[in-house]
Amino acid sequence: MSTEMVKKYLSQITQLDTEAMTKAQARLDSLTKPPGSLGKLEDIAVRLAGISGKVFFDASKRCVIIMSSDNGVVEEGTASAPQSVTFVQTENFTRGLAGVSVIAKQFNTDLIVVDMGINADISNPLIINKKIRKSTWNIAKREAMTYNEAAQAILAGIEAAVDAVKNGYKLIGAGEMGIGNTTTSAAVLCALTGMPVELATGKGAGLKEEAYRHKIEVIRTALENNKPNASDPVDVLAKVGGFDIAALAGVFIGGAFMRTPVVIDGFISTAAALVAYKLKPESKFYMFASHLSQEPGHKIMLELMNLNPILYLDLRLGEGTGAVLAFHVIEAAVKIIHQMATFEQAGVGERI
Amino acid sequence: MSTEMVKKYLSQITQLDTEAMTKAQARLDSLTKPPGSLGKLEDIAVRLAGISGKVFFDASKRCVIIMSSDNGVVEEGTASAPQSVTFVQTENFTRGLAGVSVIAKQFNTDLIVVDMGINADISNPLIINKKIRKSTWNIAKREAMTYNEAAQAILAGIEAAVDAVKNGYKLIGAGEMGIGNTTTSAAVLCALTGMPVELATGKGAGLKEEAYRHKIEVIRTALENNKPNASDPVDVLAKVGGFDIAALAGVFIGGAFMRTPVVIDGFISTAAALVAYKLKPESKFYMFASHLSQEPGHKIMLELMNLNPILYLDLRLGEGTGAVLAFHVIEAAVKIIHQMATFEQAGVGERI
Repeated sequence: MSTEMVKKYLSQITQLDTEAMTKAQARLDSLTKPPGSLGKLEDIAVRLAGISGKVFFDASKRCVIIMSSDNGVVEEGTASAPQSVTFVQTENFTRGLAGVSVIAKQFNTDLIVVDMGINADISNPLIINKKIRKSTWNIAKREAMTYNEAAQAILAGIEAAVDAVKNGYKLIGAGEMGIGNTTTSAAVLCALTGMPVELATGKGAGLKEEAYRHKIEVIRTALENNKPNASDPVDVLAKVGGFDIAALAGVFIGGAFMRTPVVIDGFISTAAALVAYKLKPESKFYMFASHLSQEPGHKIMLELMNLNPILYLDLRLGEGTGAVLAFHVIEAAVKIIHQMATFEQAGVGERI
Repeated sequence: MSTEMVKKYLSQITQLDTEAMTKAQARLDSLTKPPGSLGKLEDIAVRLAGISGKVFFDASKRCVIIMSSDNGVVEEGTASAPQSVTFVQTENFTRGLAGVSVIAKQFNTDLIVVDMGINADISNPLIINKKIRKSTWNIAKREAMTYNEAAQAILAGIEAAVDAVKNGYKLIGAGEMGIGNTTTSAAVLCALTGMPVELATGKGAGLKEEAYRHKIEVIRTALENNKPNASDPVDVLAKVGGFDIAALAGVFIGGAFMRTPVVIDGFISTAAALVAYKLKPESKFYMFASHLSQEPGHKIMLELMNLNPILYLDLRLGEGTGAVLAFHVIEAAVKIIHQMATFEQAGVGERI
């Protein structure tokens, strides 16, 4: 049932509006600057036109959707923080105290916090309940979730993005919280691409050398035991993923379906983007890369999708922090195409 | 006279306040995030404490100082735009129409526009007159300016930065406008470092291949004929620089003197920063790199000073656009250290 719904959404994701993109490029070329001299700001403005069908995009109302969930694999000791932090930090998002809360406030961005599978009872009206169940299973011992649960989690993400757009949001960031989710993200990356585990795996939020080597072993075990099917991304999510990654994949799909840009955050968010891309390559047209983190697999996945990050800040916090920091650059692209003078207006006789 | 004044300012540039930096680091480590997980945002917050002596920096009032000037070398055909564009665009800065005007408005930043040597009579009260004279000489034929003029231009830049700080600005961006100034910047870079001209020279705002090879030849000629003294940066500016570069070098010196951060923009701005750094290595502590452009020499100079850019946008417009785009990241660092919860406040029992 959920699988059919997801397929229906995927089938309705289409190409960019090339006519609007041509118009946007013509407008950019008429502005008082050497052609192309605003680099990626121009690329962003053109793609926003292709996404929205409008030369002048409106980026004023924006949100970050944070998918929170727990991962059974933490019992293997692959994370530097205890599982309870998922719950505590998710609560903190709604209290304005976390890193992403501070940055979102600065950039006039709303937080949409979703419980996909936190291992605790939540009674906070500011946290949207889309819980599949409390925590996935331990991927070192069995699959993370059933195939149907994976589809359910993707669908929950799609619906979250669709609802956000219906509520007026024009720009969406993709954030997450889930202790242990760099482990599952690395497993998903390896399962989808066949990449060696040691290349895809980093030290997460701050593992020591021995724990890092153990993390690699755990991911290897998970891949060997579960045998995810690389040609079926939903199976990959079910075998070695997490509810957070699955739901974020859904956010990318839902954004593309609604012709609304979704900004990728860090490693986990990018793993989810890669799942969406594998399910429907056209979904990539609606994605923007925000930053490049220190996780080695992050760069690899962005390159696989041919997406260029904007910010180089060595962030490794997640939560959507990098995505929100990139909103101002996207907004700058919007302002440039909107407000900069044309050669005609500015009285510059010759092209510069 | 000007030379003595510049020396006096240089002698009063000091080290960062390490006590404030230690306090800022302790505060960052008490916040609810894995230690160091906010990467360069944390580095920025710590250095702002070292610059200002305060853990909580105030970045609310900011400006970009734009040094406009003409370069005699354009008669060699090294620029893709006519010289008159320096004048027209400088006027446009004050009319809110240029790229930097649009981005400055978005980021709540004032423009301070200074005429250092535009080859035209200026009668715009919004343009500060610090004109040395109309355009430098053609460096392919003789020196750009006298030694004393170079010192005068540096001093004008120092005074512009000092005045800005006295007027309440806490954060300064270093912008420029001057047709032909990627040629002079490449010459300054080569003269200061001995780097081969073809490595330091790029295509500026958009040169074709043949014009690019010609530009390299012109810079070679300028260096061979003028024989700038690598151990005297003022001599280098006089022989192969420009009033814009000299004045911007002064802005970096003035910022350091006033213990106020100055954000570097693109290639020309970085050449000026390198001059300041060569005059007084400690001035670097007060500089932040904003973006990495497509000019090959840009990366080389930032690496020489061990400064890490924040934004990767392939900009090549100048004007201070990249510097202003980086202000929001600096502000985010300020907000993080200010507003994020400590472990104690957030009720996170164990460190994450």
